[in-house]
Amino acid sequence: MKLIRFGEAGKEKPGIQDNLGRNLDCSGFGEDWNEEFFSQNGLARLEEWLHANQENLHEIPATARIGSPIARPSKIICIGLNYRKHAEEAGMAVPEVPIIFMKATSSLSGPYDPIYIPRNSKQTDWEVELAVVIGKRAKYVKKEKAYEYIAGYCLHNDVSERDFQLRHGGQWVKGKSADHFAPLGPTLVTKEEIPDPHNLRLWLKLNGKMLQDSSTSDLIFDIPTIIEHLSQYMTLLPGDVISTGTPAGVGMGLKPEPRFLEQGDIVELGIEGLGISRQVAMNDPEA
Amino acid sequence: MKLIRFGEAGKEKPGIQDNLGRNLDCSGFGEDWNEEFFSQNGLARLEEWLHANQENLHEIPATARIGSPIARPSKIICIGLNYRKHAEEAGMAVPEVPIIFMKATSSLSGPYDPIYIPRNSKQTDWEVELAVVIGKRAKYVKKEKAYEYIAGYCLHNDVSERDFQLRHGGQWVKGKSADHFAPLGPTLVTKEEIPDPHNLRLWLKLNGKMLQDSSTSDLIFDIPTIIEHLSQYMTLLPGDVISTGTPAGVGMGLKPEPRFLEQGDIVELGIEGLGISRQVAMNDPEA
Repeated sequence: MKLIRFGEAGKEKPGIQDNLGRNLDCSGFGEDWNEEFFSQNGLARLEEWLHANQENLHEIPATARIGSPIARPSKIICIGLNYRKHAEEAGMAVPEVPIIFMKATSSLSGPYDPIYIPRNSKQTDWEVELAVVIGKRAKYVKKEKAYEYIAGYCLHNDVSERDFQLRHGGQWVKGKSADHFAPLGPTLVTKEEIPDPHNLRLWLKLNGKMLQDSSTSDLIFDIPTIIEHLSQYMTLLPGDVISTGTPAGVGMGLKPEPRFLEQGDIVELGIEGLGISRQVAMNDPEA
Repeated sequence: MKLIRFGEAGKEKPGIQDNLGRNLDCSGFGEDWNEEFFSQNGLARLEEWLHANQENLHEIPATARIGSPIARPSKIICIGLNYRKHAEEAGMAVPEVPIIFMKATSSLSGPYDPIYIPRNSKQTDWEVELAVVIGKRAKYVKKEKAYEYIAGYCLHNDVSERDFQLRHGGQWVKGKSADHFAPLGPTLVTKEEIPDPHNLRLWLKLNGKMLQDSSTSDLIFDIPTIIEHLSQYMTLLPGDVISTGTPAGVGMGLKPEPRFLEQGDIVELGIEGLGISRQVAMNDPEA
């Protein structure tokens, strides 16, 4: 299945994308795609409900806003420097264990919403990433069992302010957490549709120019290793998002000059099987 | 007002503590002390409801478990090294701007719940801290207006695994996020009851021996400065918790030898006006 959410930000309704790419309204199912849904075996219940009801679902108007495919999770955890060439371009050592950091969940936004350049920002940057959505409570999980804990996968732009991240007093969370810094989606693709998440092309274009173009086969730490590692340190809850890291080609690594987002820049990104998202950069209207 | 929550973990009910120290059941108010409550002017509505109903409220049995005084928030943000002597004992520089890091919100627990020593932990440590609870959405807030965004204050033990925090691959979140690493409460004391949050004694005892004993007057960055700083980088949501840092006397700083928690250790801590909490350390039953 491919889950979506649509409608006004903060008041999204649930839906699915069918095999023909049509977005269908699942409000009649009566649940949002949130922690409770995933924890109560929601994917299996939804599948059953769709067997009986899919033919009668309304198509969502093409003009509707598409939101994040899941409701705000308890955490968004990111893996740092998980592609070798990106660690090199960032001028950092290739890590020996997964580096993890948090994004404030208030940064979550829809796949076609603007990226807001925050007040005082001069280094707002892009990062295409494969995100994993957790399907059930995960604690002290062995990597051999990791897939049991996965609901599915999403496309994620781990938007990052480099100056805030690296030069504003330690701990990367400062540069990862502004509003609209986590465009997620368009869809959550459930795991049975992605038999091998470690062999997906992922790419990102800025104003039509390809800047990131790699494959998840280049991940230093694979998804089972990440889930084992993370669940040693904290309990992963249903609906939690783990973003697995970005390949080379971010703005701060460009030669001869770094390049950061300016008002009007168009960012497009995609992962094989997970769709494409597109964001226009604009100065935060509240700034 | 002093807000409490009581009952089984994950199914807590709301209550208050009255001026005589009695815990009263507010289930009849029909809301939990959560993001929606704070964002919908809940404190003022609750106060009004109490005027009409307080005399008829049932006292909570003394045997009831006390939970965190607020429901799981969108974020728990901590300020690092915010007391000079603590920065010295940690062997780190006194920061020039607030250092911030996240705790996974899944670490939240009640004030008398056990501290769980996680699997593979040898350095589980304590940190008494004054926590601020946000009352309304806060973004780009000026310090002069910071108090408008505060709901109240809580006692917090920012439990920390030093090896996970400092030697497991960067970013402190790894050592701050295990289950039961954020005992909060017993009460959320609303801000009008704490006219000066920068003049409160805070202390912590291990097995009856005083190890931390300081005052919030020693904070390097005061609360308005912290709110201004944080709200530059991320949007604070109603119910969010900001823990303002710990004074000297944590286990890793003890002389001649550091001392970390072992099964059976008793940690008691308190802040003037915010009550006392008590946790017994035990090995995580899931480990």
